[in-house]
Amino acid sequence: MADRRSAFLQVYYKLKSELLEDPSFEFTDVSRQWVDRMLDYNVPGGKLNRGLSVIDSYRLLKEGKELTENEIFLASALGWCIEWLQAYFLVLDDIMDNSHTRRGHPCWFRVPQVGLIAVNDGILLRNHICRILKNHFREKPYYVDLLDLFNEVEFQTASGQMIDLITTLEGEKDLSKYSLSQHRRIVQYKTAYYSFYLPVACALVMSGENLDNHIDVKNILVDMGIYFQVQDDYLDCFGDPETIGKIGTDIEDFKCSWLVVKALEICNEEQKKVLHENYGKLDPVNVANVKALYNELNLKGVFEEYESKSYEKLITAIDVHPSKAVQSVLKSFLAKIYKREK
Amino acid sequence: MADRRSAFLQVYYKLKSELLEDPSFEFTDVSRQWVDRMLDYNVPGGKLNRGLSVIDSYRLLKEGKELTENEIFLASALGWCIEWLQAYFLVLDDIMDNSHTRRGHPCWFRVPQVGLIAVNDGILLRNHICRILKNHFREKPYYVDLLDLFNEVEFQTASGQMIDLITTLEGEKDLSKYSLSQHRRIVQYKTAYYSFYLPVACALVMSGENLDNHIDVKNILVDMGIYFQVQDDYLDCFGDPETIGKIGTDIEDFKCSWLVVKALEICNEEQKKVLHENYGKLDPVNVANVKALYNELNLKGVFEEYESKSYEKLITAIDVHPSKAVQSVLKSFLAKIYKREK
Repeated sequence: MADRRSAFLQVYYKLKSELLEDPSFEFTDVSRQWVDRMLDYNVPGGKLNRGLSVIDSYRLLKEGKELTENEIFLASALGWCIEWLQAYFLVLDDIMDNSHTRRGHPCWFRVPQVGLIAVNDGILLRNHICRILKNHFREKPYYVDLLDLFNEVEFQTASGQMIDLITTLEGEKDLSKYSLSQHRRIVQYKTAYYSFYLPVACALVMSGENLDNHIDVKNILVDMGIYFQVQDDYLDCFGDPETIGKIGTDIEDFKCSWLVVKALEICNEEQKKVLHENYGKLDPVNVANVKALYNELNLKGVFEEYESKSYEKLITAIDVHPSKAVQSVLKSFLAKIYKREK
Repeated sequence: MADRRSAFLQVYYKLKSELLEDPSFEFTDVSRQWVDRMLDYNVPGGKLNRGLSVIDSYRLLKEGKELTENEIFLASALGWCIEWLQAYFLVLDDIMDNSHTRRGHPCWFRVPQVGLIAVNDGILLRNHICRILKNHFREKPYYVDLLDLFNEVEFQTASGQMIDLITTLEGEKDLSKYSLSQHRRIVQYKTAYYSFYLPVACALVMSGENLDNHIDVKNILVDMGIYFQVQDDYLDCFGDPETIGKIGTDIEDFKCSWLVVKALEICNEEQKKVLHENYGKLDPVNVANVKALYNELNLKGVFEEYESKSYEKLITAIDVHPSKAVQSVLKSFLAKIYKREK
């Protein structure tokens, strides 16, 4: 495991050094150092699950055939493109959400001297993806498919972010805008496409597959991504802070969480009043009132039922897929998240 | 002229309506209205020179052959992609520069309820370019060249913006960082590529040309873009505010203007002291001191010499180009900007 991660990180350093020597731009020493530091601060510090899963998926699609060094490098490069995409979203999201910390450090825009230059750094991160793809895939027959794929997924993510932002517009805390369908839409576009579909889609494209023939794979992965986010919402309230590594604040933050939209769906008029009066307030008394209502509505049980039903549905959908290799990719994703506690 | 502009605007409305019905995203009514308003606010309100020049250039490359309706539409769509790119840069630049107005209206992020959602709107604008290209050029043999072109130019613009931002870092007003070569670098990357090279490159690609064979055209247009920005810097100080439509504040804003880097180059030690003590201050006395020094150094005359030398060099470079059609494209660009007063 540690080896796998360090081999992957080596590719990061190679890609970074290529970007810092990019002949399309005349760097000054100061600007080269700026990009160097910006990349190290924002790109490699996460769990790297999305990136690593491109290599894992590609390996499974090859059905046991040993991968060449070049194949491993290319799959890793695509994995890093996803990590770069994630870094780009996070740098900009943190600015929009006025966040303080990310991965245990101050958000990039809060680093002294950075400030709103971080907006342009976000743009640079996004542009690096195209540079990496051009440097390593320009001559591949599937180059244009990669460009289309990253463009489409970025568009969907930004569109999901938009409905999230305008649904939770500051100063308009209005629970009536929240519903299961709105929750599903935000999660599907903002998270599921780039976190679940994109890694597998990269591996499929690299294997020579036409993505138009894999709409079913996309649908399954998007459903898995939605299930993953519902877990996230559940753990924010009911998870063990020690295990998940943070104390959830979705209730205080008026988040469009699965728990609140489910509560709104099943509660009676009196309980709805409790939600409206207590959701999105910082006072611990309000938070406790919401949690008490969640317990009254047995949201734990409702979640557990949702979890087992989702699992069954996903397994059924996977089992009818004609390719055993694709089945194994999808099942490996599902195994990683089913009944997770962090 | 008015007809030409209104025909071009009709294409905007068609492209917008396609984006608002994009099947890759499930719009809600609220989010569709948001994008609609955001586009109308930010995309079509400029002078449209960059966009219109794609059509003009394409027409010249066709050497008098009548363009089909479809050709006009496609050239217009590419023109709008450049206008979209410009809107994307301006929305984000205004946030980074903390600007107040743009094209006579409040900057988009200053519109009530928008705020930092404007960051995501910038991203959406950028993504719309790929959607437009995919909708209308996916089947063209030059589709991948268009994607590469827009990606490369965006990368160069963002890189130029980066050196501009870190050179003028707030709280580090240090004239010693300014030089002619630094000025050239910022202008070339931040402005020249997307404003001058990109429109012609789009027209060339649409004509079936391989851009690798047109490095000379790129170099000429980049030089023209630099000359254009030097004019801009000159007019900010010496232009007629009535004619240019604004009162220049480059001196107050500590801008890396051609005038200050030229002054730094030709001044003596005593005059340099005056610059260091007065540049970048709001007090009209300081501004007047800088302007007096500019006059003492005869920057007007220095500029006029620069202007005529640039013109000669450009004409010479254009005249050796093997294609008369390309020559006419380049000369029409040059004619539009030579000795401009606004």
